[in-house]
Amino acid sequence: MYVILVYDCGEKRVAKMLKLCRKYLNWIQNSVFEGEISESKLMELKNHAKDIMNVEIDSLIIFSNSNSHWLQKEIVGQERGSTDTFL
Amino acid sequence: MYVILVYDCGEKRVAKMLKLCRKYLNWIQNSVFEGEISESKLMELKNHAKDIMNVEIDSLIIFSNSNSHWLQKEIVGQERGSTDTFL
Repeated sequence: MYVILVYDCGEKRVAKMLKLCRKYLNWIQNSVFEGEISESKLMELKNHAKDIMNVEIDSLIIFSNSNSHWLQKEIVGQERGSTDTFL
Repeated sequence: MYVILVYDCGEKRVAKMLKLCRKYLNWIQNSVFEGEISESKLMELKNHAKDIMNVEIDSLIIFSNSNSHWLQKEIVGQERGSTDTFL
């Protein structure tokens, strides 16, 4: 499945979240990731994220779909991360 | 058309970008927006964004599709913005 993941965490937790998400997805900008991931791996990622996050304060949004080809991606300005799954 | 927009701008330009994007889309987290927008309005938004951005440094990514219903959205932790187009 294809996902776009964005997080907004307290400063103390940002580095851990970045490291975690990089393990599973491609970093594309700031706190934004995308990529193909299996449902079980996504579940794993979410569970690890919940361990890191303060869910009373932090926010994690995951957009997902079984097919990435519905999606057009346009970049204005700089491309922060290059990905294998560039659409 | 349905879009997810994420930007990463220098600190001096963040407030202007936030204000601009809020005019056209729903703020959902940090520098992340989503919503339904016409192609002409999206073009307008991009043109205004380019005026604000330093395109040598800043980054704006727009994911777009004609149909929002392909997409599942899951929120872990806090929902930053409530939207009319919550899926």
